[in-house]
Amino acid sequence: MNYDVNNIFARILRGELPAIKVYEDEFTLAFMDIMPQMPGHLLVLPKAEAVTLYQLPDDYAVAVLSTIKKVGKALEQAMGVDGSSVFQHNGSYAGQTVPHLHFHLVPGPLKALKAHASDMAPAEDLQAIAARIRQHLG
Amino acid sequence: MNYDVNNIFARILRGELPAIKVYEDEFTLAFMDIMPQMPGHLLVLPKAEAVTLYQLPDDYAVAVLSTIKKVGKALEQAMGVDGSSVFQHNGSYAGQTVPHLHFHLVPGPLKALKAHASDMAPAEDLQAIAARIRQHLG
Repeated sequence: MNYDVNNIFARILRGELPAIKVYEDEFTLAFMDIMPQMPGHLLVLPKAEAVTLYQLPDDYAVAVLSTIKKVGKALEQAMGVDGSSVFQHNGSYAGQTVPHLHFHLVPGPLKALKAHASDMAPAEDLQAIAARIRQHLG
Repeated sequence: MNYDVNNIFARILRGELPAIKVYEDEFTLAFMDIMPQMPGHLLVLPKAEAVTLYQLPDDYAVAVLSTIKKVGKALEQAMGVDGSSVFQHNGSYAGQTVPHLHFHLVPGPLKALKAHASDMAPAEDLQAIAARIRQHLG
């Protein structure tokens, strides 16, 4: 699959669409999923033109895992839980809906997930959780 | 959580317990899950004493993602599908059952997963799939 520079996450990365960000650095961006499958559901993206993990340059691998580690630990603390899960879909066959590589990060088990993209969460709820996560990022 | 050097995956890494391996290098091991939640279900482990992703040294991050990329693409080809998913649990609260960091790799969507650790697959079925994956690893 070729990379579509106008996919919704590319537009968020370029600042053309808003996102409730919790962390950003040169190589990655982490923000709240607006249709959370569990309260605290975050997305971590590399700033690389990759649709799937199989297209991610190695340069970004450390950065992405480093951001997941940093943000995931803060997410656990912000939500007051002792555990978190990471998941990631490659290709529409596997359930990928936006064609820019993204890792999902949730403060709990996958079996507790609601259906994907079922309900928009109120922005103020997402803002409040994001603020708590940012606090724990120090 | 402290690392238990006698957990089942540590014993597999030391060669004390068998596993149906598809790929191994200095830093990682990939083998068939014996209780697959979908045919082709693989596990990718770093050879590091880490219970969760939050304990994984950065040195292993590139190696783990590199192995997931390599093996995941071969898994898609071996199973004849155009997509795959990765998932990973940190802590028993999040559904982690073996206290050594492991990434699950499946040739399809998470919504198609069977319950975790519900049924042992016949070893010959796993061996046949592993052989096909190894073929696609070239």
